[in-house]
Amino acid sequence: MRRARLSGPRAGARRRGFAHERDLALRLFKAGFAVVRAPASGSKASRLAYPDVVAMYRGRVLVFEAKAYSSLRPVYVDARRYRRLVDFAERAGGRAFLAFKLVGTGEWRLVPLQSLERIETGAYRCPVALLEGAERLDDLVRRVKEGGNLYIT
Amino acid sequence: MRRARLSGPRAGARRRGFAHERDLALRLFKAGFAVVRAPASGSKASRLAYPDVVAMYRGRVLVFEAKAYSSLRPVYVDARRYRRLVDFAERAGGRAFLAFKLVGTGEWRLVPLQSLERIETGAYRCPVALLEGAERLDDLVRRVKEGGNLYIT
Repeated sequence: MRRARLSGPRAGARRRGFAHERDLALRLFKAGFAVVRAPASGSKASRLAYPDVVAMYRGRVLVFEAKAYSSLRPVYVDARRYRRLVDFAERAGGRAFLAFKLVGTGEWRLVPLQSLERIETGAYRCPVALLEGAERLDDLVRRVKEGGNLYIT
Repeated sequence: MRRARLSGPRAGARRRGFAHERDLALRLFKAGFAVVRAPASGSKASRLAYPDVVAMYRGRVLVFEAKAYSSLRPVYVDARRYRRLVDFAERAGGRAFLAFKLVGTGEWRLVPLQSLERIETGAYRCPVALLEGAERLDDLVRRVKEGGNLYIT
């Protein structure tokens, strides 16, 4: 199986994307989670097939779609990707989140994927208001480790 | 992040290894599990960091080290790899298995990693007798889906 190299005009953005995913994965690992990241392949198929980050803690499964921007702005997840993430979380018995990193602050904000709005195109949108009120990573980690209900935020 | 290409004398064996892991992952996916495979990178670091296959079903986590051989033979897992797999399974609240594929039969046999014997070098060995008596994939899948105890085999 041959994997695509990271090259071309989008390679810089991809590498930065992976660096942010790595940051999220590392924080969860340090908090005691088992963590898997999606293959860092340029292959679109493999990126679609897996969540960016999956974290497990004593049978509780968190599925993350990671996005990093330098300002709070609406985030979009296309319909196919959204369905795959929700399907993955349902199989695993876990929950899928949009993980938004505000670059510069190092802060991750988590929005349950089910809270996103479906827009006319069929894609899903996370408005800025949801990001503003979103849970922070430390709080989610604490909640999961204390055995709180993943399904109420 | 630049990934190594699959090339050199071991490339053929690696590609076949990935094909077998893919077979295991696909079977678990078809059985209703959420499944993640390790990055198909030539990078030794990334191969070491992740289990070959992780499968989740409603909060139950199975961690697999996959090996494929054309005959029943003892299988060895080095000490570092073994510790990483067990640590991953403990964090996840799941269980780690050696998944042995008898090439040609398409059959997967599962041995809990804890059943392996530690040998003088510090590595762990799965003797042929354990493989002969090992649980088959369909049986493990049925057991997990019926909610049986993962920790008794």
